[in-house]
Amino acid sequence: MSFQNPVFIPGPTNIPESLRKACDMPTIDHRSPLFGQILHPALAGVRKVLKSDQAEIFIFPSTGTGGWETALTNTLSPGDKVLAARNGMFSHRWIDMCQRHGLEVQIVETPWGHGLPADRYEEFLTADKNHEIKVVLATHNETATGVRSDIAAVRRALDAAGHPAMLFVDGVSSIASMDFRFDEWGVDIAVTGSQKGFMLPPGLAILGFSKKAMAAIDSATLPRTFFDVRDMGKSYGNNAYPYTPAVGLLNGLNQACGMLLDEGLENVFARHHRIAEGVRAAIAAWGLELCAVSPDVYSDTVSAVRTPEGFNATDIVTHAASNYGVAFGVGLGEVAGKVFRIGHLGSLTDVMTLSGIATAEMCMADLGLDISLGSGVAAAQEYYRSTQSAARKDAA
Amino acid sequence: MSFQNPVFIPGPTNIPESLRKACDMPTIDHRSPLFGQILHPALAGVRKVLKSDQAEIFIFPSTGTGGWETALTNTLSPGDKVLAARNGMFSHRWIDMCQRHGLEVQIVETPWGHGLPADRYEEFLTADKNHEIKVVLATHNETATGVRSDIAAVRRALDAAGHPAMLFVDGVSSIASMDFRFDEWGVDIAVTGSQKGFMLPPGLAILGFSKKAMAAIDSATLPRTFFDVRDMGKSYGNNAYPYTPAVGLLNGLNQACGMLLDEGLENVFARHHRIAEGVRAAIAAWGLELCAVSPDVYSDTVSAVRTPEGFNATDIVTHAASNYGVAFGVGLGEVAGKVFRIGHLGSLTDVMTLSGIATAEMCMADLGLDISLGSGVAAAQEYYRSTQSAARKDAA
Amino acid sequence: MSFQNPVFIPGPTNIPESLRKACDMPTIDHRSPLFGQILHPALAGVRKVLKSDQAEIFIFPSTGTGGWETALTNTLSPGDKVLAARNGMFSHRWIDMCQRHGLEVQIVETPWGHGLPADRYEEFLTADKNHEIKVVLATHNETATGVRSDIAAVRRALDAAGHPAMLFVDGVSSIASMDFRFDEWGVDIAVTGSQKGFMLPPGLAILGFSKKAMAAIDSATLPRTFFDVRDMGKSYGNNAYPYTPAVGLLNGLNQACGMLLDEGLENVFARHHRIAEGVRAAIAAWGLELCAVSPDVYSDTVSAVRTPEGFNATDIVTHAASNYGVAFGVGLGEVAGKVFRIGHLGSLTDVMTLSGIATAEMCMADLGLDISLGSGVAAAQEYYRSTQSAARKDAA
Amino acid sequence: MSFQNPVFIPGPTNIPESLRKACDMPTIDHRSPLFGQILHPALAGVRKVLKSDQAEIFIFPSTGTGGWETALTNTLSPGDKVLAARNGMFSHRWIDMCQRHGLEVQIVETPWGHGLPADRYEEFLTADKNHEIKVVLATHNETATGVRSDIAAVRRALDAAGHPAMLFVDGVSSIASMDFRFDEWGVDIAVTGSQKGFMLPPGLAILGFSKKAMAAIDSATLPRTFFDVRDMGKSYGNNAYPYTPAVGLLNGLNQACGMLLDEGLENVFARHHRIAEGVRAAIAAWGLELCAVSPDVYSDTVSAVRTPEGFNATDIVTHAASNYGVAFGVGLGEVAGKVFRIGHLGSLTDVMTLSGIATAEMCMADLGLDISLGSGVAAAQEYYRSTQSAARKDAA
Repeated sequence: MSFQNPVFIPGPTNIPESLRKACDMPTIDHRSPLFGQILHPALAGVRKVLKSDQAEIFIFPSTGTGGWETALTNTLSPGDKVLAARNGMFSHRWIDMCQRHGLEVQIVETPWGHGLPADRYEEFLTADKNHEIKVVLATHNETATGVRSDIAAVRRALDAAGHPAMLFVDGVSSIASMDFRFDEWGVDIAVTGSQKGFMLPPGLAILGFSKKAMAAIDSATLPRTFFDVRDMGKSYGNNAYPYTPAVGLLNGLNQACGMLLDEGLENVFARHHRIAEGVRAAIAAWGLELCAVSPDVYSDTVSAVRTPEGFNATDIVTHAASNYGVAFGVGLGEVAGKVFRIGHLGSLTDVMTLSGIATAEMCMADLGLDISLGSGVAAAQEYYRSTQSAARKDAA
Repeated sequence: MSFQNPVFIPGPTNIPESLRKACDMPTIDHRSPLFGQILHPALAGVRKVLKSDQAEIFIFPSTGTGGWETALTNTLSPGDKVLAARNGMFSHRWIDMCQRHGLEVQIVETPWGHGLPADRYEEFLTADKNHEIKVVLATHNETATGVRSDIAAVRRALDAAGHPAMLFVDGVSSIASMDFRFDEWGVDIAVTGSQKGFMLPPGLAILGFSKKAMAAIDSATLPRTFFDVRDMGKSYGNNAYPYTPAVGLLNGLNQACGMLLDEGLENVFARHHRIAEGVRAAIAAWGLELCAVSPDVYSDTVSAVRTPEGFNATDIVTHAASNYGVAFGVGLGEVAGKVFRIGHLGSLTDVMTLSGIATAEMCMADLGLDISLGSGVAAAQEYYRSTQSAARKDAA
Repeated sequence: MSFQNPVFIPGPTNIPESLRKACDMPTIDHRSPLFGQILHPALAGVRKVLKSDQAEIFIFPSTGTGGWETALTNTLSPGDKVLAARNGMFSHRWIDMCQRHGLEVQIVETPWGHGLPADRYEEFLTADKNHEIKVVLATHNETATGVRSDIAAVRRALDAAGHPAMLFVDGVSSIASMDFRFDEWGVDIAVTGSQKGFMLPPGLAILGFSKKAMAAIDSATLPRTFFDVRDMGKSYGNNAYPYTPAVGLLNGLNQACGMLLDEGLENVFARHHRIAEGVRAAIAAWGLELCAVSPDVYSDTVSAVRTPEGFNATDIVTHAASNYGVAFGVGLGEVAGKVFRIGHLGSLTDVMTLSGIATAEMCMADLGLDISLGSGVAAAQEYYRSTQSAARKDAA
Repeated sequence: MSFQNPVFIPGPTNIPESLRKACDMPTIDHRSPLFGQILHPALAGVRKVLKSDQAEIFIFPSTGTGGWETALTNTLSPGDKVLAARNGMFSHRWIDMCQRHGLEVQIVETPWGHGLPADRYEEFLTADKNHEIKVVLATHNETATGVRSDIAAVRRALDAAGHPAMLFVDGVSSIASMDFRFDEWGVDIAVTGSQKGFMLPPGLAILGFSKKAMAAIDSATLPRTFFDVRDMGKSYGNNAYPYTPAVGLLNGLNQACGMLLDEGLENVFARHHRIAEGVRAAIAAWGLELCAVSPDVYSDTVSAVRTPEGFNATDIVTHAASNYGVAFGVGLGEVAGKVFRIGHLGSLTDVMTLSGIATAEMCMADLGLDISLGSGVAAAQEYYRSTQSAARKDAA
């Protein structure tokens, strides 16, 4: 196995040297005060990254998918109603999970490439006079389409409808990379994982619960044990877990939060935006379109690039892996074969990004697309050059 | 944080250098053939460690507790009957999980320190004329009491009763350390984790499913998504996971299996037995008793040591941590305060073990117990000396 | 400290993951048979990389400069005559070392950018009727100018002159990256370090001695103790060093040799040539010249790029470091300010190289040079695309 | 290779986790300001560890032996007179190096096991009316015999004789483990390495030069290039080395100094003394003698244990390695076969030390010595128990 080139998948991201080392820990007693010195700062760090003062943070040895299940099973009961828009593979999967757990989902079908339709949410909520909808699901960043939605607008929809439903947000591919405001947006549960904005290996589901979400726990009858936040929360008080925690990853998470907060969250977001803008400049120079339909929904963590009709976009991904040792993301679900994805989140520089852009160009040329070599690189270079002093100032 | 002394907790174990490095991996594309080159050998390796030819292996980014939940939710439906003995904290917790998931558990209360009562199992099974019991739960090694049970006897009980119930075995603290025979014992689901016999950091639930267990999946109606083995199994065919796998841990698992199989499973078991015998020699020299009531149930991975009446055994653990930087395990549940536990599984040598024994002696003396310094060490030394040529032969 | 971008200095190179791990070793007894299991394969591996059947290999905890001193002090006496061409900073420094050690150096001044003048060597050697010249020094690859010389031609010059002088070759920035033939070229001492073609951290001086060089040792009166190859060689027989060896680096060296030999030396050389050709295509596209005057002396490990008159080439290096976090090499000595250097040896892919080329373009544009962004990248892409199937075949 | 047990050799020591990670660094440009941010704090840290305000610090990619050569060649000329006592293998080797470099050594033969005879030094110096002796060599801690000498007494001898000779001290196995006072003792050159008190892998020679030693450089005519402190010192001003520095080790050294100074040097020395006293208690309990003849010369970093007449002490070392995987040190030179050595410096706890003592007991018993198992352990336990609160207070 060789590990020379950066990856350009939309997570897991490239892992910074210091976080590699933070995770690579000898065994300690996970029921000792020493563990508490890792756990509690990690919880506090996550809370800050969520921009929350009051969220209860829970971290499971699991993944974002386990995080979704934690959110649902701790707050809902079989037959409960949930409102959710489907605008990509990850919102689709969350809906599927609801259905498998016996929840009734009102699905707001939304064209892939579009953001969550806050106006449609409002219609549904307003129509729900009896407040049967217990939870509104919102995928902040659809990793499949490279679409970021407006969570504040979803909150406004809830408020406008005067609806008491809770707001659960999948922030797996947004949190710690793009602005996320748990308190300000009135989020009730936020879900993410270790392997995206936190730049760690996979293995942690990370959640924030509002007071309202906490209050919903006791009446929720969906069965859960591994994902039970009551056991989890109780154990935290004893510097412990209800079972064996992933100590190394928690140590990494603690350090990752430190890195992000030291850099400053706004600088982290600006850095992601700058990297993403360079990628988008390249895509425009190639004459290609994003799956995301308009700039207001462009994701700063992943770009899904539409390839010309009749061309199998997945070939680019396969070709890049086998011929250049570079990983891009394939299209999923509805856009399988129609897009390939360039992940640009986490630990990534402009210089690294240029190598990904250059590789995409070579692949497209190799596969017969009419791409001028160096064209996307030049557009990105121009953007990165003109913004590098800003980049340095942010880093200073 | 200093990490100088070995840990003597019953898992997570001390991690071998090579496995630390195998887990500490840069990011790769977890949907690429490269990932398949890690996944499939890991699955095959686990199967061999289980001594099975045919088990389907599933590995979740979770823990042993998640493994239990996987076993239950994939094969059972609300209201299903389960037979389980309770002889320690971990059998107790599994029973608790069953109840939380709406299963009806027939509990065979068993004194802590005793093994699973195969004869009692047989009585219950024989009495269950209508075969309402779907599953028999058996904890192979009760980590709380240091008691290893006879799984073959449980199988014989099932067979003697002519009962078709499935046999689910918690092998979390036995598999890869003590003899485990999936096929020969007719195990239907075996559950373990990465952080015990496999000597890895925590973060993986590892399961083997028999054909019978696989056949039970489709009719099982307990809700599950994260732990659904159908999604998992289907994804394996594409060198993938239904979500993001813990690639580094899987890489470590692959290498751990290689290490264990290269050493030879019987040698691995003999090595654990030798280390454990030395610990037991020390305990006898101290004039103390094991929680395990008789040699046939002595665990080769953990010893729970009873301290004299009126003495709080937990003080030893606290004192060892704060004064000598050494981690032992506290007593849990019924035996809290009555025992302390010395873990002796995984990556541990006779030499390292002597330092644990010596530390326990100092702690007991510090806390006023009538322990002759060096007495336990001498007994263990004598045993280790007399068996070291065997140890070397095994290692050769 | 952040370590995200690759380095493009002419050594130390980017270190492969596996070699990082091989070097990062816990302490072992360096006087034990275990150490012998690292040392002897490392010595054998180096011998193969040198394409020698009979060279005595010596490895010191030092650097290439220490290797030069080892070569001189073990074979020469004060006042001995040495013949050496000066065509760059490293040949200059070796000459300087000779003079400091009281050797008399006949210097063949050679324009920087040119290779070693075998014809001039021959003239000097032919003129040296009394065979007072004991050693001919030859720098295989001048790291300062990116010039590779023809060592076979120097050997022919010695043979044509019928001169018995020994041939000492500085292969620091060539060995393990470009073809080097110790036996065929009649090299008497070859010198290199760990941090170039072997892709390791710095800290080892690596030498091969021919039988003739070995025979010269006893009569050599230059004082040496640390660098005495007699003590060193004697110790090897006992799996030991005369002092404490750099065990981790030796373990890394052993593994590095394994990697290189598994890939196949000719494939390693072809890989370096391909990477270098892409860089040269970019430089040509920029309309710039190499310091190396003609293709027959182009180095496959480093390119020194001449910048236009009146421009301070060092600014590119400073700018790249401070604005883009990328390391290039400055010009040294005569060509200081006139060239900047792109290192392209060791663990480097076409994809990584493109990011270096792109960065150089941005820097030059930022600093006002008339460079078309993407132009060099496109030329390199075209070359890499058209040769990637060959690259894969080599890697297969 | 397995790395489970600690080593008990007198260096290289067990390496702390954090220093392993500090040394394991990706490549950076060693001619960049970033390198300066590692180098200069490392130099300042070493100066503090030497308890000096004014020493010039030089660090070479080499070993302690290279450090000796640096001291001699930078300050002396062929034929210069040096005064040195020989009381063990390392003082012997330094004398041998002097002779190989054409220095004239007045040797004060001293029985092995005794400290340096300050009175004899004074006699020689007083007799040297013409002040022909340029340098007095003193080995602070004879690693071969476990003897620490009184450097302050040697300084008093120089002063009493009114002699201007410089004082060079080999502190390889004392500095950073036992009290060393560069300024107070009037040391002119102190030599050490990375792999002892600094707890790092081998690969660095570390030196402090007084003003007087610096003043001697220009007139010294012994040839040197690699070890020339003038080139080295000049380069430091440019954040650079005259050749490629061992960046990772320097990064480790920087962090090691931080660890030592954070702990407090006096606490570091007390910690070593406590560990050593436990070992000595064990040796006394075994009824064995140290090679060091009296408590005032007992070394706190290594104990050389005399075995009974007719017994080959080296067998213990071989047996420990092959049967228990534990490394002790053999006897060297005059005491080969008569002593075995237990290293107890650097990163070592009381708990780890007990495992070394226990292993030595098993080996001695295995080899037929009349040793009561557990006897030495018990003596050490008693000492460690009774002093652990002090240990914790120091660590607090």
